[in-house]
Amino acid sequence: MRIAVLNGPNLNLLGQREPEVYGRTSLAEIEAMVRDAARALDAEIQWFQTNHEGAMVEAVQGLKGQADGALINAAALTHSSLALRDALLAVRVPFVELHLSNIFAREPERRHSVIADLAIGMISGFGAESYLLALQALMGRLRAT
Amino acid sequence: MRIAVLNGPNLNLLGQREPEVYGRTSLAEIEAMVRDAARALDAEIQWFQTNHEGAMVEAVQGLKGQADGALINAAALTHSSLALRDALLAVRVPFVELHLSNIFAREPERRHSVIADLAIGMISGFGAESYLLALQALMGRLRAT
Amino acid sequence: MRIAVLNGPNLNLLGQREPEVYGRTSLAEIEAMVRDAARALDAEIQWFQTNHEGAMVEAVQGLKGQADGALINAAALTHSSLALRDALLAVRVPFVELHLSNIFAREPERRHSVIADLAIGMISGFGAESYLLALQALMGRLRAT
Amino acid sequence: MRIAVLNGPNLNLLGQREPEVYGRTSLAEIEAMVRDAARALDAEIQWFQTNHEGAMVEAVQGLKGQADGALINAAALTHSSLALRDALLAVRVPFVELHLSNIFAREPERRHSVIADLAIGMISGFGAESYLLALQALMGRLRAT
Amino acid sequence: MRIAVLNGPNLNLLGQREPEVYGRTSLAEIEAMVRDAARALDAEIQWFQTNHEGAMVEAVQGLKGQADGALINAAALTHSSLALRDALLAVRVPFVELHLSNIFAREPERRHSVIADLAIGMISGFGAESYLLALQALMGRLRAT
Amino acid sequence: MRIAVLNGPNLNLLGQREPEVYGRTSLAEIEAMVRDAARALDAEIQWFQTNHEGAMVEAVQGLKGQADGALINAAALTHSSLALRDALLAVRVPFVELHLSNIFAREPERRHSVIADLAIGMISGFGAESYLLALQALMGRLRAT
Amino acid sequence: MRIAVLNGPNLNLLGQREPEVYGRTSLAEIEAMVRDAARALDAEIQWFQTNHEGAMVEAVQGLKGQADGALINAAALTHSSLALRDALLAVRVPFVELHLSNIFAREPERRHSVIADLAIGMISGFGAESYLLALQALMGRLRAT
Amino acid sequence: MRIAVLNGPNLNLLGQREPEVYGRTSLAEIEAMVRDAARALDAEIQWFQTNHEGAMVEAVQGLKGQADGALINAAALTHSSLALRDALLAVRVPFVELHLSNIFAREPERRHSVIADLAIGMISGFGAESYLLALQALMGRLRAT
Amino acid sequence: MRIAVLNGPNLNLLGQREPEVYGRTSLAEIEAMVRDAARALDAEIQWFQTNHEGAMVEAVQGLKGQADGALINAAALTHSSLALRDALLAVRVPFVELHLSNIFAREPERRHSVIADLAIGMISGFGAESYLLALQALMGRLRAT
Amino acid sequence: MRIAVLNGPNLNLLGQREPEVYGRTSLAEIEAMVRDAARALDAEIQWFQTNHEGAMVEAVQGLKGQADGALINAAALTHSSLALRDALLAVRVPFVELHLSNIFAREPERRHSVIADLAIGMISGFGAESYLLALQALMGRLRAT
Amino acid sequence: MRIAVLNGPNLNLLGQREPEVYGRTSLAEIEAMVRDAARALDAEIQWFQTNHEGAMVEAVQGLKGQADGALINAAALTHSSLALRDALLAVRVPFVELHLSNIFAREPERRHSVIADLAIGMISGFGAESYLLALQALMGRLRAT
Amino acid sequence: MRIAVLNGPNLNLLGQREPEVYGRTSLAEIEAMVRDAARALDAEIQWFQTNHEGAMVEAVQGLKGQADGALINAAALTHSSLALRDALLAVRVPFVELHLSNIFAREPERRHSVIADLAIGMISGFGAESYLLALQALMGRLRAT
Repeated sequence: MRIAVLNGPNLNLLGQREPEVYGRTSLAEIEAMVRDAARALDAEIQWFQTNHEGAMVEAVQGLKGQADGALINAAALTHSSLALRDALLAVRVPFVELHLSNIFAREPERRHSVIADLAIGMISGFGAESYLLALQALMGRLRAT
Repeated sequence: MRIAVLNGPNLNLLGQREPEVYGRTSLAEIEAMVRDAARALDAEIQWFQTNHEGAMVEAVQGLKGQADGALINAAALTHSSLALRDALLAVRVPFVELHLSNIFAREPERRHSVIADLAIGMISGFGAESYLLALQALMGRLRAT
Repeated sequence: MRIAVLNGPNLNLLGQREPEVYGRTSLAEIEAMVRDAARALDAEIQWFQTNHEGAMVEAVQGLKGQADGALINAAALTHSSLALRDALLAVRVPFVELHLSNIFAREPERRHSVIADLAIGMISGFGAESYLLALQALMGRLRAT
Repeated sequence: MRIAVLNGPNLNLLGQREPEVYGRTSLAEIEAMVRDAARALDAEIQWFQTNHEGAMVEAVQGLKGQADGALINAAALTHSSLALRDALLAVRVPFVELHLSNIFAREPERRHSVIADLAIGMISGFGAESYLLALQALMGRLRAT
Repeated sequence: MRIAVLNGPNLNLLGQREPEVYGRTSLAEIEAMVRDAARALDAEIQWFQTNHEGAMVEAVQGLKGQADGALINAAALTHSSLALRDALLAVRVPFVELHLSNIFAREPERRHSVIADLAIGMISGFGAESYLLALQALMGRLRAT
Repeated sequence: MRIAVLNGPNLNLLGQREPEVYGRTSLAEIEAMVRDAARALDAEIQWFQTNHEGAMVEAVQGLKGQADGALINAAALTHSSLALRDALLAVRVPFVELHLSNIFAREPERRHSVIADLAIGMISGFGAESYLLALQALMGRLRAT
Repeated sequence: MRIAVLNGPNLNLLGQREPEVYGRTSLAEIEAMVRDAARALDAEIQWFQTNHEGAMVEAVQGLKGQADGALINAAALTHSSLALRDALLAVRVPFVELHLSNIFAREPERRHSVIADLAIGMISGFGAESYLLALQALMGRLRAT
Repeated sequence: MRIAVLNGPNLNLLGQREPEVYGRTSLAEIEAMVRDAARALDAEIQWFQTNHEGAMVEAVQGLKGQADGALINAAALTHSSLALRDALLAVRVPFVELHLSNIFAREPERRHSVIADLAIGMISGFGAESYLLALQALMGRLRAT
Repeated sequence: MRIAVLNGPNLNLLGQREPEVYGRTSLAEIEAMVRDAARALDAEIQWFQTNHEGAMVEAVQGLKGQADGALINAAALTHSSLALRDALLAVRVPFVELHLSNIFAREPERRHSVIADLAIGMISGFGAESYLLALQALMGRLRAT
Repeated sequence: MRIAVLNGPNLNLLGQREPEVYGRTSLAEIEAMVRDAARALDAEIQWFQTNHEGAMVEAVQGLKGQADGALINAAALTHSSLALRDALLAVRVPFVELHLSNIFAREPERRHSVIADLAIGMISGFGAESYLLALQALMGRLRAT
Repeated sequence: MRIAVLNGPNLNLLGQREPEVYGRTSLAEIEAMVRDAARALDAEIQWFQTNHEGAMVEAVQGLKGQADGALINAAALTHSSLALRDALLAVRVPFVELHLSNIFAREPERRHSVIADLAIGMISGFGAESYLLALQALMGRLRAT
Repeated sequence: MRIAVLNGPNLNLLGQREPEVYGRTSLAEIEAMVRDAARALDAEIQWFQTNHEGAMVEAVQGLKGQADGALINAAALTHSSLALRDALLAVRVPFVELHLSNIFAREPERRHSVIADLAIGMISGFGAESYLLALQALMGRLRAT
């Protein structure tokens, strides 16, 4: 199983950025945790982070035939990027949407997702743990189908 | 660890009710799965289902001192029950909100939760698997704190 | 033919409650009228009234296999009870929605029904006569299918 | 008793127009059914159909002194014609609003009626049967007053 | 000076229609009053009433070169007829908008006019007297320019 | 007949203020025109202008028993002063609302009046002439009742 | 004088629930205070608390002929229960609406009451003292009429 | 204890102004009642009424060090005066908001208060009695702190 | 191939009406251009213009079996005529929606079309040329299917 | 160069009023700072503060011919005073809008200005320094033109 | 004539992406068709596609002096990119907006264009044919001016 | 002191782009002016312009430890870029928001800023001068803290 993990704008600052909201673990530490967990599940991880919407769109386009599923933490792109939505509609790879913080406990403009209805499901609010839960959820679904 | 699992209106019909949306597993089968998983995690499950908002409120009130955390699938109460919200505000037990279906892929009135900002986080869209992921997420959080 | 008639909150006060809006006939008198009319149509009536949303939900759940169709005057539950809607979605018994008063001539919050799109149709504004028209409409539909 | 039946735009296409929504019975067939039912009730039917709002307004104006009551299926005029509303306010003939389809199960712009609060009541969703139920409801009301 | 007076739907019922709102004077009586007043002002009146939006549009189209100004009581067309607005934009004859009732003291949907910004001004609420005031206002403006 | 004419904020600048909108006639010139016209109608004019909402409120309070009717050009107070509305509700003197410019052809916040439904009627858009038309309309109404 | 005091969901937790919002006095302590104050005013108290909307509805229905007036702290039901509103419309017992916290200083969804326009008046924000003020206000009104 | 009572626009007309809404007691009579009640509570009353927002603002500014608390019936200023709100934010004297009529049973624009969240609480709907209840509530709060 | 061209209200004024918006070519000149272009494409044109919504509805009804496709410039009817929409739903002839002006550069109420989702596509903003482009687009589609 | 500085309601309390929002400098201290800075720029300052909207309006009216430019901190009047806007439209003196606090970081009703589009520009959020920056900006503009 | 064709995000996937919405022709095939058609019209094509908003902005900036007109299919950028709008405002090259699908038959967020009012016109819904129609429309306009 | 100046999309066109809105000074000229002014204030300028949201985000990320403060003219990104907002939240460098034009005198979608509440303050409407005022304001604040 090949699993892509796509991370959106500012996630490269994780651990420094508003730690009371996003926690103190860095993205590299999360990547290591996810790779460990994936290994135990016999899955291979493709890790990606970008601050550019266009690059995110192309990363999704690149999933076709290269990944069996994806974990997507689109960060600020979650709430308004129709281009990301179009890419996901085009590629139709199964994916789980995830968020570090509980987006429902935040400002109103963060409570809306333009990709959520395309996802298998959403996991939101568990910090770095959100990635592991999402991986597990995705693997479960991929194995079942 | 004592974990309460509170299920709202119509979940007693699970397996029969709109199986294309909610899946074919019955609530009793899910209960068995959750009890099994909890046992492996050394946790004890208190299982509860009701079709009555008042009973749900009282179940939450009863958590005080009786449970270390809760999994709450409030079903239709999710979207409008301020009484449930008030009970959760009063008791302040840590809980994970969960949904069988991806509520973001459904009708607009199902995309709003009046309890989400009180939860640790939300897990939505993975069918019966949502319960197991939520249990794991809750246990992780309780163990960490 | 077994026809259930489900009546929501405060309908037990009929005849006393705002008679200029709802008329002076009591619910018991309406029940008698409906039973008479049903007898003439060779139908059997199951009569139910409750002030509790949870009990209404369970009454709908109980229709499965016990009734061929239903008349539902959900009263105040009409306008906001997603739990009632979920029960109707789960059970899928054919039903006619009815109202004593013309809900379109009343306050804005009474002009919206969360169950109307699940019904065969709606009859609204003819007082006690609404029940008899609804019974006839339901019987016509049940006989035709 | 003289009963006018006023039919709005495109009802002349009935039976051909979106039969999955409006049924396969033609307007002429419905007219025949209504005339039969009226005869049994000792009522005389004045039948009218138009695709012109202005002609509908004048048909309502002409009810004064010429009809004891009316059945009105205003079709597309239901949702926006203030001129029709003004005519009904001017003439004040008792009428029942009726619709072939359940307007509450359709697009949002079809769920609003600018004449509903002037009607005795509304019957919606029973196909051609809506006419017969409406006739019966109107006759009941006219006989009672 | 040739002055056209254009009257919209249901104004032919004046005197009978909701007299507590619109007064008891008939449209013919108002016409006589306006013709008298016009004579004193050396103006010639072209009187028109229709219940058809299309006829109103064509009456406005016909003003070109045939009238020096107009009084327009568009009745129900006031609030939504973009076709009437387009005709007024095309012909650009100077006109005064008038209403028998004070449209600001009525239901919200009657407080909006789609032609008001094209008019010289509006006179609203003085019953039959509104016509005479509007005539005088229009004549004053036409004489001044 | 004693007629009060109440003028709101910035009307003292008339003739200087945005002449393309409000015309070049000064308020003193309008006052003279109104006094002349009133004399011909055997009416006595009480003229008042203020830039203070509180003074406008007290001017309305002072109408009780001192004036038979009023012309009110409330200017900017038209759109938001509930205190002015309350004074008019308290004193209940018959009045005509008037505006120099056609308020329906201006910015949206100028298209709403919080006093219009209390007035006999409104005259809007005829410049200084609006005062004379309003005087005539008011006198007609006062003489008729 | 018989005075009913009806308390809605979660008020049984008073003193424990968000004490910074609702204070530290328990409902039993408030009941004692109210009974003392009532005794001094020669009034008899009927005390009731429920977490169930249906039970609240039936408590209101039961007021007919059994109480001369009521104090109602509907808690979360204040903001959305049309069934409670309908019961109050049916029974029409004079009542005072009261709240422990100042509902106007709270979240938007708590600033709206669906029963307020049926009450004599509202007292909001004085903690346990709200009950005593409401009792006094109600007694004053009952004695005056 | 020094208690200021601040009364907003048009309250000087009390007893004359819409007596079916505001009662027949004059403001002077209420002042006498409040002074009597205050004397019994060992409090001194500073009474103030104005029709001018600016004067109301300055009256609030003057409370600093001159009053221990205030009763404020801001009348029409309640609903829109940000200047009054700013004055109350600046001075921070404890105050009770009061209204003669039940503002929740009136027009929508009267159901909103821009000062309510700064008050200890609100008392609304008990006519002249509202002042006495508010005095008592304020004194209780001042004595307790 | 038989192509109907349906033109709505005020298009008969083309060339005179707001030439800065709609251009200086008359409708007759456009008709000639369209007929020329059609001849080259071996298509036959049925040309129609009306100022009456009802006539437009009937023109659409008449397309059934009489035309292979249509060009529709519904003018003011574009934005609100549900009757026109119903006729198009009933007849289901393939059509291209066209506009002379760019409706997206105009007032907000002209940016919405109630028939656009039923059309093959829309061509808007190219003046008389819009008709020729639309003809070409329609012919292309008809030839392809 | 003569520069008027106009200060709105409650600015006389500066230094005492919510110092965490508005700073601890008094208005007199700011006046001294502005006068000093103006002297260095060879400008003469006219200083004005009022709590009365009417006085603010008249201060703007008085600018005509008496000042070459103005700094306006309209405080609470910023957000709703159409009378102030009208005065600025009438006098058309060049002015800079300024605010002590960053109005975009405050409550929604403070984020809207009814005079901003008439100003040269806006300076907001720099406390007392806002006055000096605004003076400099205004002088730059006046010298350039 | 030099014509630039600018294609936005995800159009590089054409033919694969949701073929039921966008058709089965690839972007390269469309490019070939457009180049052929342009050659016949003596025009030279500059073809561009990007998934990056910034690159699209710079492509528009680069049109200045390099192209006589443009065809723009902005895809997802159509609905929200103010940066693209600003670039078009800066460069002011004449362009035609085009869409493969009928954007008016899609989700609401796709029915709004932030560049449409800057375009000569819009062509929407004809698949690959939209490009050829747009080319022809643009050439016609460029040749005419 | 190291001051970064970040300029968003299309600012590279300054002087050419809509000069009636943005002035005729080029960005290079402004850069020179700012560098001059900074030198006088002993500050060092880091100048940056980009048309790419992602590059803007990374420029903000790069401020950490590299700049003591920033001037940000985010241009079109001002109104919708949550990614920019997130970067500013992460880095928390003090900054002043500036605009060349008065954004409050422009289209509604340009009157909203998603970064304003994070800024020290905003300066808007003074053309190139806005940069110098913002520099001065920022330096004042940095020196004071």
